[in-house]
Amino acid sequence: MSHLKFDTRDWKFILHEQYDLKQLLGLKKYADFDIETLDTVADEGIKFAIDVVAPINGPGDAEGCKVADGRVTAPQGYAEAWKKLGANGWNSAIHSPEFGGQGLPLFAMMPVFEAMNGAGQAFFMYSQLTSGAAHLVENFGSEKLKKLYCEKMYTGAWGGTMCLTEPGAGSSVGDLVSTAELQPDGRYSIEGTKIYISGGDADFYGNVVHLVLARVKGDPAGIKGVSLFAVPRDWVNDDGSTGDFNHAYVESIEHKMGINGSATCQLSFGSRAPTYGYMVGEPCSGIVYMFQLMNEARIMCAVQGSAIANASFQQAVAYSKDRKQGGDVTDLGGASVEIIRHPDVRRNLMLMKGYAEGTRALIARAAWAADFSMSSDSESEKENYHNMLDLMIPIVKAYTTDKAFRTTELGIQVFGGYGYCRDYPMEQYLRDVKITSIYEGTNGIQALDLLGRKMRLKGGSLFMQYVMELSQFVEQHKAHSVLGVASETLGEAQGALGEVAFWLSSQPRAAVANTLLQATPFLELFGDVMVGHMLMQQAVLASSKLEAKLGRPSATREEREADADVAYYAGKMDVARFFVNEVVSFAKNRARAMTTGVNVANEMVW
Amino acid sequence: MSHLKFDTRDWKFILHEQYDLKQLLGLKKYADFDIETLDTVADEGIKFAIDVVAPINGPGDAEGCKVADGRVTAPQGYAEAWKKLGANGWNSAIHSPEFGGQGLPLFAMMPVFEAMNGAGQAFFMYSQLTSGAAHLVENFGSEKLKKLYCEKMYTGAWGGTMCLTEPGAGSSVGDLVSTAELQPDGRYSIEGTKIYISGGDADFYGNVVHLVLARVKGDPAGIKGVSLFAVPRDWVNDDGSTGDFNHAYVESIEHKMGINGSATCQLSFGSRAPTYGYMVGEPCSGIVYMFQLMNEARIMCAVQGSAIANASFQQAVAYSKDRKQGGDVTDLGGASVEIIRHPDVRRNLMLMKGYAEGTRALIARAAWAADFSMSSDSESEKENYHNMLDLMIPIVKAYTTDKAFRTTELGIQVFGGYGYCRDYPMEQYLRDVKITSIYEGTNGIQALDLLGRKMRLKGGSLFMQYVMELSQFVEQHKAHSVLGVASETLGEAQGALGEVAFWLSSQPRAAVANTLLQATPFLELFGDVMVGHMLMQQAVLASSKLEAKLGRPSATREEREADADVAYYAGKMDVARFFVNEVVSFAKNRARAMTTGVNVANEMVW
Repeated sequence: MSHLKFDTRDWKFILHEQYDLKQLLGLKKYADFDIETLDTVADEGIKFAIDVVAPINGPGDAEGCKVADGRVTAPQGYAEAWKKLGANGWNSAIHSPEFGGQGLPLFAMMPVFEAMNGAGQAFFMYSQLTSGAAHLVENFGSEKLKKLYCEKMYTGAWGGTMCLTEPGAGSSVGDLVSTAELQPDGRYSIEGTKIYISGGDADFYGNVVHLVLARVKGDPAGIKGVSLFAVPRDWVNDDGSTGDFNHAYVESIEHKMGINGSATCQLSFGSRAPTYGYMVGEPCSGIVYMFQLMNEARIMCAVQGSAIANASFQQAVAYSKDRKQGGDVTDLGGASVEIIRHPDVRRNLMLMKGYAEGTRALIARAAWAADFSMSSDSESEKENYHNMLDLMIPIVKAYTTDKAFRTTELGIQVFGGYGYCRDYPMEQYLRDVKITSIYEGTNGIQALDLLGRKMRLKGGSLFMQYVMELSQFVEQHKAHSVLGVASETLGEAQGALGEVAFWLSSQPRAAVANTLLQATPFLELFGDVMVGHMLMQQAVLASSKLEAKLGRPSATREEREADADVAYYAGKMDVARFFVNEVVSFAKNRARAMTTGVNVANEMVW
Repeated sequence: MSHLKFDTRDWKFILHEQYDLKQLLGLKKYADFDIETLDTVADEGIKFAIDVVAPINGPGDAEGCKVADGRVTAPQGYAEAWKKLGANGWNSAIHSPEFGGQGLPLFAMMPVFEAMNGAGQAFFMYSQLTSGAAHLVENFGSEKLKKLYCEKMYTGAWGGTMCLTEPGAGSSVGDLVSTAELQPDGRYSIEGTKIYISGGDADFYGNVVHLVLARVKGDPAGIKGVSLFAVPRDWVNDDGSTGDFNHAYVESIEHKMGINGSATCQLSFGSRAPTYGYMVGEPCSGIVYMFQLMNEARIMCAVQGSAIANASFQQAVAYSKDRKQGGDVTDLGGASVEIIRHPDVRRNLMLMKGYAEGTRALIARAAWAADFSMSSDSESEKENYHNMLDLMIPIVKAYTTDKAFRTTELGIQVFGGYGYCRDYPMEQYLRDVKITSIYEGTNGIQALDLLGRKMRLKGGSLFMQYVMELSQFVEQHKAHSVLGVASETLGEAQGALGEVAFWLSSQPRAAVANTLLQATPFLELFGDVMVGHMLMQQAVLASSKLEAKLGRPSATREEREADADVAYYAGKMDVARFFVNEVVSFAKNRARAMTTGVNVANEMVW
């Protein structure tokens, strides 16, 4: 049975009402596609997620992965689903046709990525990691490497991994101690131990190509001396045939809180016998390459979060409409009613809706920007979108995943005791999604990236550009008959955000430790404002849709009950007003708390 | 190995510096004790928790419980620990000497309850449930029942359960369908199914006494017609000997997110063969009895939350002092330093400290009030404390457990990837503690209890009494040289809380559905304020201790490093200022959000 209740309606709104796909298909790169094709592909992907991926999610969690003799066995059903995933092209939808991909725009495939992750985060990680690794080879590898590896990986015949973390080098990648040594035959001999390698192996991988960060002996210490290597599990000969085991060995797998279907491996290279690899790109450029694909990887991490938040939200709504418990508030001793009638439950659902749909809208904007930043035919448009994306990314990643976790927490509360039991999907959602706040750069690291790097990029102009956009939006809608008050609250929040940003940027360099105490609060404040903005954008559009249908930008209960579109649009207005009132309206006090100069956390002696 | 790092220092502060144990020992009931005895007992209890309970916590989670033929087998090591727990008197420390207890004051034993729950929440649940059930019999049962059951339960020879929930009656207990029918021999024949019965059976229970809510056939529908029955697993003859199996059958156990060492049972009574029980107390009084012990039960639930929050906090501090990663903020490319030097980590720890120590202080106040409300020699003092407790309880229960969950989330983030792995205790803390927001009345129910019941009790005077106390505190300390600003912020928050309370109480009856949308936000606001108040009370005391030591109410880094007491007192001041600035200062915006009349959650058509 599928646990995934996928919200097709909200995605149709984003793809076809909020954004203009024609604009995307106007780009040279996507000239061969039409909207119908994109829709058909997306619908098939969603169906695949519901029918094939969702059913193995719960059982895969319960069974987990096994390791023996350096090889991983994934849960039952994974191998079969993986085969189908590859056969149907879902590993490579957005990747280059030159290597077996379909070259579809990221933005148009976002519903599929959400559905796949919502259906089975642990399972789909194998696909995302493999794609990511292949993409690195495609972008930075030699022609030979591309020819040898990319198609095999994009089609799912082989797997791929990203090997960054070591026992002493997690958030601080530059501290890694893995080494590489050039051999007479042009290969490198790789030695080292990597931990937390997601999808480090699987019984359905014909081979695995590990993308390994290591330091060529003699290269500089720290991040500047790190190079990237492609290290296959089984050696790949120049003619494409597979040779001997390359001694990339799975030493153990982690026992985790969640994503138990995904094998989190400790890998050793060269510990039992020599392990060889080829360098990808130029020496000492490993981190540069990683950074160039980081925006995409972080969007994908955010999609995982938002996907699980939305899955949890949809489950909670369905359960609340079904489960009867307690009398209506106006008739407390009376017959039990569906719990969706209880105000406290409705409030929980509304907050879940705000985070789930708000982060979805945020990610959609990021995906749109990513497509145009990579594929626009105009250099200035490319740059504009790249700027927008650069600023957004830490918020997209950290805010989405933290609030996704909060959403799954609320989802459990809506289910009550049932939410705590493994018979229902709610508690797995929470356990699975927790990892998204940790990997792809912990959310603490994201906050430092936002405050320490992104806010300063190009003299702070990325931030100013966003604030101007927001300010225009507020001006435009503050007299809206229904959304005016919320627009003004958003404007107040924008003011608070601006004040904090100015205050933080004017702190002396010597006070950096105190300034950085505000990194996480600043990211949260910025996220509240930006997600409020995204929801309000959708609400304004929804109000004009209602206006067109009903002659006014609001709807009665009867009108909502009579027409699903009316209910949907009115709901978009509701959730924006709710979120702005309930979350964004704290901005002023948040900002004040950040600028009072209470730095006791740095004074404490533990 | 013990995972529990117990904070003895903070408890010594509460027991010996903040409160006056002599006052408690001045009560007739406790006249036989002296402070030294209480200390010795508490120290032994903490040692027991660390040495005996903590080591079985992780393994017990991994192994879980098993059920076969209607009987439960708990994880390995539980039986032995249970035997020692009983032999050392830890089931009955606060219970009546008449039935094998030691009659110690609750307040003085709070460190033990925290240590036991922090060491092994799942294990200690068996003890708390058994004590709670025995306490019900002791308070409301006939002399015969008391004689037959209480001592066996308090000493741990037998277990006990509270059987309230049914598949269709969770939060709404009055909907239960279990029945009881009087037999000619004075016993009742019990029929029904109960779910989520914690500790419903265990292989180390010689017998189990189930305290079952059921309706005598013909009694009124709803909560008013519910009676309480004592239903032993194996029949207990009048001479105390054990007879035949009474067909209280464990049908199944739940597979849960956490507390896996605690068997959560579905029990059937009378489904295979007749099950008998005696009524406890008067007919149709079941819920009244439950209510009378509810304050104690909810304090105990809060202790679980705070205990886990504190365990997670202590682990996070220890880990941060040990783990090296990344250069200091003033020397980013430099050598890796302990992560406790990174501002973002320090901020996480400070927030954890605020929630962990703040809820501990809150619970201590509740326990003090509970002791005096039950055992004061003055009726008016009893009533005063009872009032204080009644108002506090929903906050103590819900705020503590929700923020405990938040604390464990932060704890995982401090550990990074390690926090997500089962090799460390952090992820189990989070999984275990989640249940505390659900059982003993979900936190949504607590919010309704606060807003709908406690705020109205005695014409709102319970609330006014608290606000007056808080207001005096603010007045007294707003000129404090170090804590003055925080006192003023607390005063502002008090004003906001008062305004919201007034606004809510003046809403028309017809708007009840909208008013109740604010139940959870109100509880959270009240909790922020109350915990801020508790931390500030401790900070004021700590500042006077510093003044006595150093001649001023503050300390330099050097002074802190040189003297553990100085570091402790200064830390109490730090955490209060941090918490007030970081959390309490949002009160004004919180209050505004609650009173704007945005009731869209009730307008939404899902």
